[in-house]
Amino acid sequence: MDLFEKALKVKRASEKLRNLSARKKNEALMSIRESLERNKFKILEANDKDVKRARESGIKESLIDRLRLNEKRIDGMLKMIDTVVNLKDPVGEVIDSWVREDGLRISRVRVPIGAIGIIYESRPNVTLDATVLALKSGNSVLLRGGSDAFNSNMEIVRAIKDGLKDSDIPENSVEYVEDTSHEIVGEMLKLNGILDLIIPRGGSSLIKFVVENSTVPVLETGVGNCHIFVDESANLEKALDIIDNAKTQRPGTCNAVETVLIHEKIAEKILPPLVERLKKKGVEMRGCEKTREYVDVHPATEKDWETEYLDLILAMKVVKDVDEAINHIKRYSTGHSEAILTENYTNARKFISSIDSSAVYVNASTRLTDGGEFGFGGEMGISTQKLHARGPVGLRELTTYKFVILGDYHTRK
Amino acid sequence: MDLFEKALKVKRASEKLRNLSARKKNEALMSIRESLERNKFKILEANDKDVKRARESGIKESLIDRLRLNEKRIDGMLKMIDTVVNLKDPVGEVIDSWVREDGLRISRVRVPIGAIGIIYESRPNVTLDATVLALKSGNSVLLRGGSDAFNSNMEIVRAIKDGLKDSDIPENSVEYVEDTSHEIVGEMLKLNGILDLIIPRGGSSLIKFVVENSTVPVLETGVGNCHIFVDESANLEKALDIIDNAKTQRPGTCNAVETVLIHEKIAEKILPPLVERLKKKGVEMRGCEKTREYVDVHPATEKDWETEYLDLILAMKVVKDVDEAINHIKRYSTGHSEAILTENYTNARKFISSIDSSAVYVNASTRLTDGGEFGFGGEMGISTQKLHARGPVGLRELTTYKFVILGDYHTRK
Repeated sequence: MDLFEKALKVKRASEKLRNLSARKKNEALMSIRESLERNKFKILEANDKDVKRARESGIKESLIDRLRLNEKRIDGMLKMIDTVVNLKDPVGEVIDSWVREDGLRISRVRVPIGAIGIIYESRPNVTLDATVLALKSGNSVLLRGGSDAFNSNMEIVRAIKDGLKDSDIPENSVEYVEDTSHEIVGEMLKLNGILDLIIPRGGSSLIKFVVENSTVPVLETGVGNCHIFVDESANLEKALDIIDNAKTQRPGTCNAVETVLIHEKIAEKILPPLVERLKKKGVEMRGCEKTREYVDVHPATEKDWETEYLDLILAMKVVKDVDEAINHIKRYSTGHSEAILTENYTNARKFISSIDSSAVYVNASTRLTDGGEFGFGGEMGISTQKLHARGPVGLRELTTYKFVILGDYHTRK
Repeated sequence: MDLFEKALKVKRASEKLRNLSARKKNEALMSIRESLERNKFKILEANDKDVKRARESGIKESLIDRLRLNEKRIDGMLKMIDTVVNLKDPVGEVIDSWVREDGLRISRVRVPIGAIGIIYESRPNVTLDATVLALKSGNSVLLRGGSDAFNSNMEIVRAIKDGLKDSDIPENSVEYVEDTSHEIVGEMLKLNGILDLIIPRGGSSLIKFVVENSTVPVLETGVGNCHIFVDESANLEKALDIIDNAKTQRPGTCNAVETVLIHEKIAEKILPPLVERLKKKGVEMRGCEKTREYVDVHPATEKDWETEYLDLILAMKVVKDVDEAINHIKRYSTGHSEAILTENYTNARKFISSIDSSAVYVNASTRLTDGGEFGFGGEMGISTQKLHARGPVGLRELTTYKFVILGDYHTRK
């Protein structure tokens, strides 16, 4: 089956899926759950093949860890299904509704987007996560995973389709592009009129390629050069906790902090204990000239302000005040998540209104930008663009709306 | 000033504009209004030049009409400003807000999109309409109008900027790309990181070019192959009124009907009076084979089902039932506006849920899909894509949101 044919099947399936009740969709998700449990060992076997091949081709261990499945991780996938089953179906919600003076009733009603193309990299659990979130919100998916996880992905998709067999969701609601060539991704990005949306999930080069080449609308996700500004009045003890949490709890994620900005009046007090604490956690620190007057860290260059390390590295800069912090963030932020730590109301207010990122925090860790943490029950990624959805993309963000207008043979005057 | 420099100015202006209060924005709009009034004759003079040049180059009269301004049309533009001033500013609205069990408060707050590129064709009033809607919703604009209206557009922009001089909205919030070459449009479409959104307004070839070439997110507007299905149970007298209204009231608009589908059981009754009525209005009709059994019209071909005539031409097809009507629409619709005329509840319900267009009508004219008719006070176009906004794009649709999270030094567990 070629790409076009597969995409068309996904498109057609979306028309049936669009009007399915929440109950029927949940029954189908539970049937997928059973099928995954039934096929657990087949999936693990396929994953072993992928891991073995990855090892042989010399892929580094941190990537192999992302690729690897085990019984515990599969249990996590099953639990994810339970969570999504329990979430409210956003489809059908009347967002707003009004009646004109002449009696014409206009309603804005939430509906699924349609057929969604998802292009992702090594983690095979994305195959399930993305599918489950899409189906629950009434969308069908055309999946294209990374070649590293090919065998795992194929086996997961087989289990999903097997689960859909006895359900009301058409099997074609989930199709996988088996062609592992780079060219096929380019072709997917031109399927206007068939795919309604493309979501790339992966590293910045994948996302850049998709944004630059897609004629289908794209939901850009992921790149996070996040900042924390520690204002003069912040509680220093608690500020240390937040910076530590935002940098070290999971440094490879897009919501981890990359640059900390420190008010000059507290630099002398906070920098030594901060450096001591992060050193113990294995963090490499790079500071501006002023930072290096107080602590012994590597010098930071222009490149550091621009970099999303995704690693145990932190850039540090001493700033004059909240305005300089805001200007630095405006210049280097990727619009993901930024935080101010302060006890000063006016500075908090200024920071909130001036910073135009998807999530703006007062006295909290940037690591909280997450569908689960926000109560969405899961996420399809974190949008860093401004159109359609910003921040965590949950079920609601996988829908659009249409206007339903009920008249009594109304014409336009 | 080159394109990049201009775009950067617009971007910077958007940062100031973003936080301006509704009062300051309204004051600036009223100041633009005064300036337009002051400069009315300069604008009309410039427009005369454009009209003369268009005539000389043999442009057809209907297009010249779109290009022409007169005192009445300028009065209409001033009234449009009054309307927008009186609309509620959507910026700052808390869309939803919740508190986690641990006390972390998460709010989704409406904010402007930022810097918007608008690429449009001959009508010079778009220069003002687009600017006023963008400024009121806190967005700055980089305008690129059609070369036919160059002198008119330049004079309108001059008047706008003159009005902004004594206001709190930075003058650079509105910039016009004076380069009339085709290449410059291509360059605008690649201004990622500077422009947050591109809105094309014009014919289908302009829109296609923008969609296919833009790496900046696009709000696709406009193409409307709209349908009306007259069900067996419809009130035939009123159905005639609606079809007449939807076809002839303003045939050049995207919400005008292009194909009417007729239930076979009423074809004999409705077709003769329909054809008689529309003939009087100068409508050319093209029918399927069955249609031609009842009335003497041109034969319709496959191409007719696909065409947005934007003219006094109507395609007609007799169908077996609501299902055949739905299938025809699914196949040929551009997702703009479709209507069912019926007294049958079940068929109305089926039509509403099966048709996935931006506006779905029961017993009303497709001509009602319009920002003004919907109560938005104006519109930046009608979106036919599924992402971000569908249907009329008003002030609310020119905004996005960000998450504002207030914590008490919360970290991620």
